[in-house]
Amino acid sequence: MILRQITSPGLAHNSYFLGSQGMAIVIDPRRDCEVFLELAREHDMRITHIFETHRNEDYVIGSLELAARCGAAIFHGKATEFAYGTAVSDGDEFAVGSLRCRVLETPGHTMEHIAVAVTDTEVSALPFLVFSGDALFAGDVGRTDFFGQENRARVSGMLYDSIHEKILPLGDGVIMCPAHGAGSVCGAEIADHQFSTIGYEKATNPLLKMDRQHFIGYKVAEHHYMPPYFGEMERLNQFGPPVKGHVPDLVPMEIGQVKNLMANGVQILDIRAPTSFAGGHIPGSISIWREGISAYAGYFLDYHTPIVLVADFDLGLGQVAEFLFRMGYDNLEGYLAGGFPAWFKAGERTAQSGAWTVQKLSSVLSENRDLFLLDVRDINNREDVGYIPGSAHIYAGELPDRACEVPKDRLVVVYCDAGYKGSLGASILSRLGYPSVVNLLGGMGAWIKAGYPVAGKNTGK
Amino acid sequence: MILRQITSPGLAHNSYFLGSQGMAIVIDPRRDCEVFLELAREHDMRITHIFETHRNEDYVIGSLELAARCGAAIFHGKATEFAYGTAVSDGDEFAVGSLRCRVLETPGHTMEHIAVAVTDTEVSALPFLVFSGDALFAGDVGRTDFFGQENRARVSGMLYDSIHEKILPLGDGVIMCPAHGAGSVCGAEIADHQFSTIGYEKATNPLLKMDRQHFIGYKVAEHHYMPPYFGEMERLNQFGPPVKGHVPDLVPMEIGQVKNLMANGVQILDIRAPTSFAGGHIPGSISIWREGISAYAGYFLDYHTPIVLVADFDLGLGQVAEFLFRMGYDNLEGYLAGGFPAWFKAGERTAQSGAWTVQKLSSVLSENRDLFLLDVRDINNREDVGYIPGSAHIYAGELPDRACEVPKDRLVVVYCDAGYKGSLGASILSRLGYPSVVNLLGGMGAWIKAGYPVAGKNTGK
Amino acid sequence: MILRQITSPGLAHNSYFLGSQGMAIVIDPRRDCEVFLELAREHDMRITHIFETHRNEDYVIGSLELAARCGAAIFHGKATEFAYGTAVSDGDEFAVGSLRCRVLETPGHTMEHIAVAVTDTEVSALPFLVFSGDALFAGDVGRTDFFGQENRARVSGMLYDSIHEKILPLGDGVIMCPAHGAGSVCGAEIADHQFSTIGYEKATNPLLKMDRQHFIGYKVAEHHYMPPYFGEMERLNQFGPPVKGHVPDLVPMEIGQVKNLMANGVQILDIRAPTSFAGGHIPGSISIWREGISAYAGYFLDYHTPIVLVADFDLGLGQVAEFLFRMGYDNLEGYLAGGFPAWFKAGERTAQSGAWTVQKLSSVLSENRDLFLLDVRDINNREDVGYIPGSAHIYAGELPDRACEVPKDRLVVVYCDAGYKGSLGASILSRLGYPSVVNLLGGMGAWIKAGYPVAGKNTGK
Amino acid sequence: MILRQITSPGLAHNSYFLGSQGMAIVIDPRRDCEVFLELAREHDMRITHIFETHRNEDYVIGSLELAARCGAAIFHGKATEFAYGTAVSDGDEFAVGSLRCRVLETPGHTMEHIAVAVTDTEVSALPFLVFSGDALFAGDVGRTDFFGQENRARVSGMLYDSIHEKILPLGDGVIMCPAHGAGSVCGAEIADHQFSTIGYEKATNPLLKMDRQHFIGYKVAEHHYMPPYFGEMERLNQFGPPVKGHVPDLVPMEIGQVKNLMANGVQILDIRAPTSFAGGHIPGSISIWREGISAYAGYFLDYHTPIVLVADFDLGLGQVAEFLFRMGYDNLEGYLAGGFPAWFKAGERTAQSGAWTVQKLSSVLSENRDLFLLDVRDINNREDVGYIPGSAHIYAGELPDRACEVPKDRLVVVYCDAGYKGSLGASILSRLGYPSVVNLLGGMGAWIKAGYPVAGKNTGK
Repeated sequence: MILRQITSPGLAHNSYFLGSQGMAIVIDPRRDCEVFLELAREHDMRITHIFETHRNEDYVIGSLELAARCGAAIFHGKATEFAYGTAVSDGDEFAVGSLRCRVLETPGHTMEHIAVAVTDTEVSALPFLVFSGDALFAGDVGRTDFFGQENRARVSGMLYDSIHEKILPLGDGVIMCPAHGAGSVCGAEIADHQFSTIGYEKATNPLLKMDRQHFIGYKVAEHHYMPPYFGEMERLNQFGPPVKGHVPDLVPMEIGQVKNLMANGVQILDIRAPTSFAGGHIPGSISIWREGISAYAGYFLDYHTPIVLVADFDLGLGQVAEFLFRMGYDNLEGYLAGGFPAWFKAGERTAQSGAWTVQKLSSVLSENRDLFLLDVRDINNREDVGYIPGSAHIYAGELPDRACEVPKDRLVVVYCDAGYKGSLGASILSRLGYPSVVNLLGGMGAWIKAGYPVAGKNTGK
Repeated sequence: MILRQITSPGLAHNSYFLGSQGMAIVIDPRRDCEVFLELAREHDMRITHIFETHRNEDYVIGSLELAARCGAAIFHGKATEFAYGTAVSDGDEFAVGSLRCRVLETPGHTMEHIAVAVTDTEVSALPFLVFSGDALFAGDVGRTDFFGQENRARVSGMLYDSIHEKILPLGDGVIMCPAHGAGSVCGAEIADHQFSTIGYEKATNPLLKMDRQHFIGYKVAEHHYMPPYFGEMERLNQFGPPVKGHVPDLVPMEIGQVKNLMANGVQILDIRAPTSFAGGHIPGSISIWREGISAYAGYFLDYHTPIVLVADFDLGLGQVAEFLFRMGYDNLEGYLAGGFPAWFKAGERTAQSGAWTVQKLSSVLSENRDLFLLDVRDINNREDVGYIPGSAHIYAGELPDRACEVPKDRLVVVYCDAGYKGSLGASILSRLGYPSVVNLLGGMGAWIKAGYPVAGKNTGK
Repeated sequence: MILRQITSPGLAHNSYFLGSQGMAIVIDPRRDCEVFLELAREHDMRITHIFETHRNEDYVIGSLELAARCGAAIFHGKATEFAYGTAVSDGDEFAVGSLRCRVLETPGHTMEHIAVAVTDTEVSALPFLVFSGDALFAGDVGRTDFFGQENRARVSGMLYDSIHEKILPLGDGVIMCPAHGAGSVCGAEIADHQFSTIGYEKATNPLLKMDRQHFIGYKVAEHHYMPPYFGEMERLNQFGPPVKGHVPDLVPMEIGQVKNLMANGVQILDIRAPTSFAGGHIPGSISIWREGISAYAGYFLDYHTPIVLVADFDLGLGQVAEFLFRMGYDNLEGYLAGGFPAWFKAGERTAQSGAWTVQKLSSVLSENRDLFLLDVRDINNREDVGYIPGSAHIYAGELPDRACEVPKDRLVVVYCDAGYKGSLGASILSRLGYPSVVNLLGGMGAWIKAGYPVAGKNTGK
Repeated sequence: MILRQITSPGLAHNSYFLGSQGMAIVIDPRRDCEVFLELAREHDMRITHIFETHRNEDYVIGSLELAARCGAAIFHGKATEFAYGTAVSDGDEFAVGSLRCRVLETPGHTMEHIAVAVTDTEVSALPFLVFSGDALFAGDVGRTDFFGQENRARVSGMLYDSIHEKILPLGDGVIMCPAHGAGSVCGAEIADHQFSTIGYEKATNPLLKMDRQHFIGYKVAEHHYMPPYFGEMERLNQFGPPVKGHVPDLVPMEIGQVKNLMANGVQILDIRAPTSFAGGHIPGSISIWREGISAYAGYFLDYHTPIVLVADFDLGLGQVAEFLFRMGYDNLEGYLAGGFPAWFKAGERTAQSGAWTVQKLSSVLSENRDLFLLDVRDINNREDVGYIPGSAHIYAGELPDRACEVPKDRLVVVYCDAGYKGSLGASILSRLGYPSVVNLLGGMGAWIKAGYPVAGKNTGK
């Protein structure tokens, strides 16, 4: 038996490859699917089945892409009507070599959500592992806010039942393979464990210790953000994303080409570090550091205007192309050849924003200089660890819609938890014409470590 | 300036990537074209032009494949009408950074053949290198037998003029980058030099020392084989091959699947060594060792019946898929998972052929045992180095058509120069129902090294 | 938390990399240790601790090699005196980021054997996983025959106690990471699961269902082979193997060099498939297919005579070098350039052995032709699935010592389970001067699948 | 014949691998020598000879490293006494397959300098290519300033004779393979051609058109910088550098470790872009962008104090380790895990320097604000393209020694040609305690492109 977890960093998404005796299945394949084909060849296995645990909302599923290349059949839960694949029902079984894969309908996160329990008949009739999808994570459970506020209680109850009636009874010794790891937007408090066991979760997952009513109350009160691109993902995943054959080719672009695009509408995605962005950038750029693309691009980038990347040394751009491919951004056109230095070497007009250390902010605040202090963190983070006294709060993802709340005629100091989203927020304000914007390097984390005062810390929890 | 030679082993074909100041051109791109895109990214260059020196007949050109991924424009000579790209004329110039690429119409090998002379304006107005296509090779010139016996003299004269009037005058210090290296079927005696110079060729290439009449006489008398797949290549390259996006995925197949295919028509391509093929193989297989595929598959494989590979350890199959992709065999279906050992481990019916050492053959011959000794080498090779006394000759590529000349009721010992094409020939005879076929390990080379008698050695030349 | 299982194919050995918050530990590192350094860089983690679960006997441990490159400290159990590293005791704890690693002394397989239980303090005080070394495997337990027949009962009891008192009490939901997977010589019946859980093992592992007395009886009766190289491994691992810095470089050798070595003593290791070996080989070669090297080379190769590899196409030789490096064969000199075909192309004297299909053997047996039928399988396999009527049995590994039991003046047909070890056995006999040796392609497996009669099948189990 | 040019970026150094018929030689191997071993295996060739064209002064030669791994013999010119290898003399010949390699003693750049002319006996008795070392480059010749001002005329004459009497007579059609490409500090005006021909150089290289007297005058007047590390290289290359076995392992370091090193002496090498360095850096860092390390590290880094790298995203650090390994910096300890963001996230004290656009500088200058404008370019560049009016000049490499010429109490604006060396210069001044330092983004290039006034442009040449 071969089990491989294939992670998509940033999304914190897990695909799985499971094979036995010359056959293999893939669970929730990512869109850049060569990795599965290579595993199949490495182990002389033929991929025969692809299971989607649910219609994912945070990335483009790679089922059609993979099926086009290996001929496997696609399966998903029957409660949503898909334009492709085959619907399965609770109890359906599929043989893969010596393994038996049994479908568990587990609605809650979505209606058509399924888990897949796997038994190795060569060893025992007991289940060995379960692919728990977005129903049960290490340390958390799936979010239940996709069906409107009015349905949250009902849907959360469904999830409770799915977990307690379908998954937990499989047994303490069953390995649990979830669809997401720590950092996913599909769960709030996912633990940093690649996989877990039913027994460990029963003993340690706080959500599993609640009774049904408590669980529902907790889930109804939970706060999640919903990036605008989720809608596009749901549409693509239900009706079938285009099959591309390969990750988009990154074309190097000269400055002249980039300026032509700028004249006609372009999304300049600056993937450099906050210090580099502050030191100089192409006017109008959006600053999202490379690892933050999966979580934040979906708030700011549209699906039709060409996207051009700007880096410092043009390293690791292929990975960034993968990030965007997984989110369906097939409008990635290329990158500025030579990186941002090519821009300043050409003497082109360069924007600069401020980058302050926490020491500098503290000193400025002590002088009572006029400034508008803007916290762009996740509201949960603000509530959990507190904030810099005097700061207003607008989540980075909501800034385009709520920028009117930020005064244009004052110096704006943006901060987040570490300094990356602060740079993102600063770039959004600069694009909107704010003349004087500063990002706080290190953000709230550095502020606290340096021993400066904190307001509003949530002492509960 | 960046110059890279990208070789396609087996075909002994050269593509070239040439870049300067952010721009690049590609000459005669191979079909698996990621290598050019990677070079472009590595050097922050945009591929803007693709030149085809001629409508190639021995492989599928990758121009459309590459253009689809980088937007470059395609150019070829105007004497043939292509269904894609743009026709160029003698003297046309293209700027690539500081380089100037000038088209030289150089008919002979084909009518629309062009060479491309390159000048670096940053250094001098003199040409620095020339892409000589199939007009001029290191140590040889292109073949001139594609237009029928009646046109060979005329066409050979055209080639003579192209070389002497267009290429050689560029100057002795000009680097010559040919489209083929040693081993190509597009030349008979290509030297084992990746590239050369005009000066070195003028001094050492025997074809360049002949006067026009002598040259034409030599070329008219020259013998070349014409694999049947050449026609398919010409058709594809003129009308545009299908754009695939990636080399076909190699699907592992279980024995049951292979047997199903066998029942419905399949081409089993056994890529193992001659010893392994002799020791056991799937009945009906064609034996072509991996490096021999580019040169020999085109004689035996058709373009519609599924192809299945059989190896020993399933190593390096991706390269074999590339070989077949470059020849347009998009009907490659997969490979026998587990290699040939999976077949014998399943107890399936296994064919075996003989493998004799030269010592054994010599001993058998000395006993006057009845056998039919068949030489399947290139006729040029037979004439140059001689043959084993008493052997008949049929070129391996012609064996399907001329097998009737081989007696079915006698033991047939096949030999070539080294033992690979002998295995191929033995496999063809076995497929045709010859009950008793043996391959000579080491072939003529080993026979000579072991000191056995040789007949018919061409003492001239 | 990052957990990675690094497998050494052939040995079926598992190393583990476990990291948290910038620190990492490695369990039982393999000798080619770059993989751990790359993981450390990929995750920005510093390797601080190396744990050896025990003094391994089947491969060279990579602790010193790894420590030399990253400065980590080495730890092992205190019951054996090592020439390097630090001894640890039951209950010792080590912090690695948020993780706590607790030592469990678990003697039985060896005296100094330890397991390491890991708790993630960020989640819970309960253990999350255990590195069970060679104490507990998926579906099996470690062998207990290293201390002589007279100590087997006592040692087996120690293992029973280690498992039942130290490992199983950790809890059903604890993930179990063993040092070996299916195919290892360190266990007899290891299941084909990369890892397992305490709960799953308790429910399914037959050894865990026995009471102490039954367990001891079973272990005392168990049969294991002991390859002669085990002694060298134990010595190296106790006193510290030489630090090499890299896997030995594979030097291509011309025929002349190989023949020179042959004159002075060399071990020719022929890694080709059984069909290829039968079709022709260098006289005196030992035939071990690539995947079989880890399990079988230790019976036949010494540590001082130069080793030269012979393949067909020189593919994947680096992996073979890794196999040998892991077993301490630092006397690997190189490989025959061009593979075996270079040999026959040179007209060199070539040995050939027979390769029969099961159909052929059946037919020959029905004719009552004289032959000696030799079964070289593991005795357990012979007893479990039966044998071909009339066959004698000598395990392949014991053949050098017991060849005198095989008649030299009769045709010897060697068979195993699949045809690989049969080729190995045939090569050993040929080296010893047996003039007429045949290997059965497919071995017992093919014989049974083809429906031929079987003797002595153990109907119990 | 296989010819491969292996470049070491940054150094613009070329090694060569040349093989024929199972044998190969390497010319001027770089220290990370796996690439040669891989080429040897790829082509089934044994490396038998290593030639050093001279005792290199700009990098550590890899001859001993390579010889230790493949057993090849090392050869160099006899005019310098080396502690290893064998001395060769003019006319010595070495056979490599069908090739003949003839030594040409070509003193001038150094006394023991040799070139190697290669003939392919299979084709002709005429030379095919020449490895010209540091005697003759594309578009330039080697520098002749290593033996003191008093010897320059004599040495330059020797070089003239070497070129005109030994190399040029080989013939116009001979391919010339030099030891350096464009960007090397071993020549001033090397053209951007990977290789050239004798004929092309004779026609286009301005140095080859001068008569002996003119040539000597030109070379005597030529200005070159001499980085301090050259002495260390000469010593190592003469007496034999330590054999390491692999490029130093890059160890990720936590902030605490880095601060410990800082307390005891450390060289923090900040390899980020100028914008990022300006936005924030560890106090005391030296700013050298990644591609600039080979050319500039040798001015600032010593060989005993530990070196720690700081990047933004920890990408491509392995290549930086190679750069330093090639320069003998075996004191590379590791890198700051998490890059510079880890520093500011920890709230550590962060230094910032200014980064101005050319527009900003122009505007400030027009306001007559007080500042010290410092040009740190190569003096040749200043003289060729002119400078910003009012600027002083100190070459970046000389800044440590001549900083006293820069006022500490004024704002210092540093500029170079593009903005990288300006960041380097700014970092050196900051380390020396200059409180107010700014780097000009884009430097002189951007200044000119933006149309601002230029002083002192050399109108000649």
